[in-house]
Amino acid sequence: MSATVPLTPLLTLLTDFGLSEPFVGVMKGVIQGRCPGARVIDLSHAIRRHDVREAAFWLSRCFGWFPEGSVHIAVVDPGVGTQRKALVARAAGHIFVAPDNGLLSYVLDGEGAEVRAVAIERLALPPLSRTFHGRDVFAPVGALLASQALDFQSVGPVVAPVLLPRPLPSKAGACHGSVVTIDHFGNLITDLELSSISAFREPKIEVRGQKCDLYDSYASVPVGRLLAVPGSFGTLEVAVREGSAEQLLGAERGDTVSVSDVAGRV
Amino acid sequence: MSATVPLTPLLTLLTDFGLSEPFVGVMKGVIQGRCPGARVIDLSHAIRRHDVREAAFWLSRCFGWFPEGSVHIAVVDPGVGTQRKALVARAAGHIFVAPDNGLLSYVLDGEGAEVRAVAIERLALPPLSRTFHGRDVFAPVGALLASQALDFQSVGPVVAPVLLPRPLPSKAGACHGSVVTIDHFGNLITDLELSSISAFREPKIEVRGQKCDLYDSYASVPVGRLLAVPGSFGTLEVAVREGSAEQLLGAERGDTVSVSDVAGRV
Amino acid sequence: MSATVPLTPLLTLLTDFGLSEPFVGVMKGVIQGRCPGARVIDLSHAIRRHDVREAAFWLSRCFGWFPEGSVHIAVVDPGVGTQRKALVARAAGHIFVAPDNGLLSYVLDGEGAEVRAVAIERLALPPLSRTFHGRDVFAPVGALLASQALDFQSVGPVVAPVLLPRPLPSKAGACHGSVVTIDHFGNLITDLELSSISAFREPKIEVRGQKCDLYDSYASVPVGRLLAVPGSFGTLEVAVREGSAEQLLGAERGDTVSVSDVAGRV
Repeated sequence: MSATVPLTPLLTLLTDFGLSEPFVGVMKGVIQGRCPGARVIDLSHAIRRHDVREAAFWLSRCFGWFPEGSVHIAVVDPGVGTQRKALVARAAGHIFVAPDNGLLSYVLDGEGAEVRAVAIERLALPPLSRTFHGRDVFAPVGALLASQALDFQSVGPVVAPVLLPRPLPSKAGACHGSVVTIDHFGNLITDLELSSISAFREPKIEVRGQKCDLYDSYASVPVGRLLAVPGSFGTLEVAVREGSAEQLLGAERGDTVSVSDVAGRV
Repeated sequence: MSATVPLTPLLTLLTDFGLSEPFVGVMKGVIQGRCPGARVIDLSHAIRRHDVREAAFWLSRCFGWFPEGSVHIAVVDPGVGTQRKALVARAAGHIFVAPDNGLLSYVLDGEGAEVRAVAIERLALPPLSRTFHGRDVFAPVGALLASQALDFQSVGPVVAPVLLPRPLPSKAGACHGSVVTIDHFGNLITDLELSSISAFREPKIEVRGQKCDLYDSYASVPVGRLLAVPGSFGTLEVAVREGSAEQLLGAERGDTVSVSDVAGRV
Repeated sequence: MSATVPLTPLLTLLTDFGLSEPFVGVMKGVIQGRCPGARVIDLSHAIRRHDVREAAFWLSRCFGWFPEGSVHIAVVDPGVGTQRKALVARAAGHIFVAPDNGLLSYVLDGEGAEVRAVAIERLALPPLSRTFHGRDVFAPVGALLASQALDFQSVGPVVAPVLLPRPLPSKAGACHGSVVTIDHFGNLITDLELSSISAFREPKIEVRGQKCDLYDSYASVPVGRLLAVPGSFGTLEVAVREGSAEQLLGAERGDTVSVSDVAGRV
């Protein structure tokens, strides 16, 4: 029976709005009005307030788990009400809608990525508020693109987006990254690609002056011990078995994480 | 392809049930059983426990962002298990389902609004619990209305609903309202319609003995300064730039908010 | 119009992942890729971390409120990365997908229940992570079953699942159970079936050395008084009217709850 269902457009939402107030629900109402029947999936609404880098990280790590053609609306928008642009991008077979503040930085890596500025005065819902462009700009533009009522090229002119700094490239025997987000268990999720240390024979990880080793899984060390593990989204994580690395280290987002290859130094 | 998708009914949910327990999920299961394929959107499940006025406010401010014909189920229900009625209403092209405790007060303003009492013994799921009418009464009745298996007139007799007190009307040069809800950033959201003070030339806002001015946006004042701004749902908000008005003022829901026109007084 | 909508598969999710990070959202992306158009409903993602018994309780109490044929994916998985099996089960007209740690214990009661071990190496998404089988195993297997692209018998061999201890059976005049979960109001939800004490004429409930009586509803006692009530999911609840039984008693999950029939003793 399911084989006869026509495919309805798929959208995702990523914001720092929280779920206490009906802000996200209203965005979904606006989407249903412009793309009836759309499937809308919440990625997270608990991005730390105004933490564009955390949102950029999760967006880039998550979109590939969705079918090609999905539309991803991401709104972490400290500049709402100012002259910052609104963007749409097409990259890796997906469409992205976000404010122009670096949020799309990490999804634009592939060849052929294209970024356009939204013609807000033409595409926003009237009356345009000063404080809630998630509802007035990003939701309606994403819905119009998802429903194919709006063509990508018609959104507005091609622009060069604001980009966040890239993580430092790794060198032979050493590389550096930082803590991008801390999950609700106190695990430190970094932007250090596992691939960048895959050649290290005996990696030693250092955060906040404390060193630890890389293991396959939490269960490889005693309870309470600091360790590093391969994270499930392709980057290095620093954790404490059945404990909180955040608390043990007093760690914060932005902390530097260094990896050196002990074996390589000898 | 999306153009060929038949429109499935759209429902929203607004409760004080929280998301920790599976109460909301079970309501959605009941809805799918009686309205297969329904699209169900969460407005909020974080209404303060038993705060009917907060729920009534958000319901009235949000429903208009959804397509006409949507069915809105709102359950903040301190009287569950007592003799309070269950209501359905039709207003402004939308359908509402809620307990008879004032929750629908602010959506019944338009002409032609109609309210009926649900014949609970006929329409509730057996066995009717004493504590969870969200699952046993409101979800199934909303789903039957959404699926058009139940006609609005067949729900039960016309009744006069319980109504909350209205905000005081504004007078020349002065008006009063109150804090209806406080968002998770500590902004005070009031029931003072922006339209009621649009003629004020130099409005001065007072809450908890502190006065502030009205600006276009947070960015108009220095960090830490108290101000009032036009809220994105049509009412006045009191905020602190990059801070919490709730904390600064020790404000609570229900606090009086007064606006006087300084220019008008001269 | 709704009558012409073809039925899309229905799945539910129950985890201890929380909603702060995009883990649940990514599971839904994987589901949409393998079962396009699926309706996915969240039961809860706030199961206490690694509390298999709480998840088993809610799963067994909730699935019956969904239409037959639904697929229920439950992931509370302290053994992820070890050799623990992944299971699918068919019981009471529903399908269940979960790790083999007791989570399915209470849904396998009916006649004809069947349990199979998932052939993980054949059905998991590559590369299989060590820490996120919700995304890599349980979501894709559930989606393939829901879409009927995978036949139940083809999942893997029949196995005997890990089972949690059953609650003690009641005896004439006395029965015992325990606190399975505590809701966000501080109500103690037990595994004591209401049917097991329905013959008691004057039940006296005891938790943490304090006794109370059974009433129809909270409103039967003064504010602040401890009482027991019939819970809306078929088991006994212990509560304080407009207060928290958890705080009053210092109660915890796992606490013994005893019921004796005072009348029966005479």
